[in-house]
Amino acid sequence: MVKVGILAIGSELLEGSIVDTNSAWLGSKLTKAGFNVDDVRLIPDDREKIVTTMKEALEKYDIVLTTGGLGPTFDDITAEAMAEATGVELEMCEEARQHMIKRLQKYGVTIKESHERQALLPKGCLIFPNVSGTAMGFAMEQNGNVIASMPGVPYEMYNMFDNHVLPFLLERHSLKERISIDVRIGGLPESDIDDVVIDMNLPEEVECIINVAKGECLVKFRGFDKAQIEKCAEHVAKAFPKNFVGYGDDGLASVLIRLLKEKKMTISVAESCTGVMIGKELTEISGSSEVFMGGIISYSNEAKERLLRVPHNIMVLYGAVSVETAKAMAVGVANQLRTQCSIAVTGIAGPGGGTEEKPVGTICLAYSVNNEVTTKKYEYMGDRDAIRTRAMKTALREMIDLLK
Amino acid sequence: MVKVGILAIGSELLEGSIVDTNSAWLGSKLTKAGFNVDDVRLIPDDREKIVTTMKEALEKYDIVLTTGGLGPTFDDITAEAMAEATGVELEMCEEARQHMIKRLQKYGVTIKESHERQALLPKGCLIFPNVSGTAMGFAMEQNGNVIASMPGVPYEMYNMFDNHVLPFLLERHSLKERISIDVRIGGLPESDIDDVVIDMNLPEEVECIINVAKGECLVKFRGFDKAQIEKCAEHVAKAFPKNFVGYGDDGLASVLIRLLKEKKMTISVAESCTGVMIGKELTEISGSSEVFMGGIISYSNEAKERLLRVPHNIMVLYGAVSVETAKAMAVGVANQLRTQCSIAVTGIAGPGGGTEEKPVGTICLAYSVNNEVTTKKYEYMGDRDAIRTRAMKTALREMIDLLK
Repeated sequence: MVKVGILAIGSELLEGSIVDTNSAWLGSKLTKAGFNVDDVRLIPDDREKIVTTMKEALEKYDIVLTTGGLGPTFDDITAEAMAEATGVELEMCEEARQHMIKRLQKYGVTIKESHERQALLPKGCLIFPNVSGTAMGFAMEQNGNVIASMPGVPYEMYNMFDNHVLPFLLERHSLKERISIDVRIGGLPESDIDDVVIDMNLPEEVECIINVAKGECLVKFRGFDKAQIEKCAEHVAKAFPKNFVGYGDDGLASVLIRLLKEKKMTISVAESCTGVMIGKELTEISGSSEVFMGGIISYSNEAKERLLRVPHNIMVLYGAVSVETAKAMAVGVANQLRTQCSIAVTGIAGPGGGTEEKPVGTICLAYSVNNEVTTKKYEYMGDRDAIRTRAMKTALREMIDLLK
Repeated sequence: MVKVGILAIGSELLEGSIVDTNSAWLGSKLTKAGFNVDDVRLIPDDREKIVTTMKEALEKYDIVLTTGGLGPTFDDITAEAMAEATGVELEMCEEARQHMIKRLQKYGVTIKESHERQALLPKGCLIFPNVSGTAMGFAMEQNGNVIASMPGVPYEMYNMFDNHVLPFLLERHSLKERISIDVRIGGLPESDIDDVVIDMNLPEEVECIINVAKGECLVKFRGFDKAQIEKCAEHVAKAFPKNFVGYGDDGLASVLIRLLKEKKMTISVAESCTGVMIGKELTEISGSSEVFMGGIISYSNEAKERLLRVPHNIMVLYGAVSVETAKAMAVGVANQLRTQCSIAVTGIAGPGGGTEEKPVGTICLAYSVNNEVTTKKYEYMGDRDAIRTRAMKTALREMIDLLK
């Protein structure tokens, strides 16, 4: 078992100005590769704290990865901290310096003394190229363990990790790749899924984690025996035929896009309160433009009537938030964008806008498939973000169900 | 100085299935209230690790807050870990049990033995009500320090923290509220801002953190003297008149919505590759429906021609990704939604779709204000997400500039 500790460096992380997404990204990649992520810590830009934590981690873990603190500003001190933690001096690294100069010149940034700091690295370190940024990564060895530092800017770090750091780590440790299968179950309380998993009496070598995220349960099976893991995943999927969403890393949007491609159908969306979360999810899938033709965000009643051709008397009779209006929106957008399928959402995401009759959380959905329209109405709990997200997930899941 | 350690519990966090946003949210609230967030750690669902970390934290910090592990599934073990860490037994808490039963009955969930576990809490603990969920929070004292556990589900935790946990902590510690002002500077390298801050020769009692997040620099000043902090923030804002975006927690969307309300103008958006990120940002601001009338997501060329009335010959002559097409899109959507202002974006977010002439990252923007249209063209670096986000931020920032 090869243990990894992740240190995310930056006071802004502890003070909440920025959410640390790097650690989750790294954790996911490392776990898949067969490593064990034992620890993730956020550390402030405090030299003593960074040095102490680096030293502790280097004693406990085979691999220590850090992100952040490689920039040119006064609070970027990862290199000097690593030098102190590993008992060496800082040294000007000519390769890093040349890379930095070339890059800054390319973008017309005046080179200052602060930039030079970025090339002062622990003496004797290994360096990792940064194709998307100025600061190179670097690594030191100590008592057979290794500590590697990468930039905090996500896409700079992704690139460096995928192309240089991970290969470097895999050279040092030959691991059996961990098989991981996620089973996504939507619309059920986690206790229902927990019961099924407990009855499976999983052997010790199979790990199972159940997560709940905004209306969806993620059941993650993990181990080193592919056939065994596949069997476990299938068992759970079959236990919930109506609520099974999909396997693997496929989110709902992925599944829907793939289904539409298989059936050679196109889709459009008409959104109001979900404020285009459905459209965003779909466009996030590379290649979605084959099947997702576009949509209309109809925030105002006027927009619904004019762009989506929702009949005025329907708006007056039932209101903007009603299954009748949702149905007209679905028909309207499918016509406007000439698609076989469409999804329409209208509702009250809050915090304001609720009434006795239609409280905050009221969501009306309509699905059109080849001109046949199905409507649904729900009342969700939670804050604005939770309501919008649940509506979006429900919309995608129910569209998937209708297409199957 | 009152020190806080935050422990986010859940193996899914270390394995990256879920990003820990709770710690950042708590960190932000605590820092504002005057606490010092010294440590944030992610811990797996491993009883021994949780107990050890809780014990260590309780010795080092005045306050330890944990999120996660309060659910009914087999891997939810926070209560038993806290009991062991504080040297007490678990005890059935009748109030917690009644709350859980009432809530599950309300949502028609069958009550199982696993649910009963959620009411087994450390003997003698203080409890915190959970108005949005089943599991109550709880806290224990040890040698003058306190450890409090909250649910991992974000909106359940937010509610409990704001209404019960934070008031409880403020009863124990009378703190001077920390003044924090963020200055947002867009479109400049962080080294430019760093220079200005270094020249300010800040006194020790003023903390300054510079963050860079996708095309925007966030300069955060913090201290206990309001006048002093305001002076620092103003100094930086005045140093970059063209690139100054705004103060405080106001993101670009907030600033734009506020400006439009002041000028009594409405806005619409026409998006394609940004896949409705602009629309989503705007609708995220509560009250945006006063000024944001809606928009059109025109992914396909057909949608651009039909819905946005982009002349066919323009599409043929210049292509879908051109300032000419962007201009026509801006005019088209403003007409369709009858708004005084509009923003249009067309481009290539990647990873596919790029050509020699129009590589991945090419973004064309158009801004219409009372029928006067301005266009811009950029080439961004980064992955799909970075390109889309930068395009969205640039669009909002430039619209703000045009309106001022």
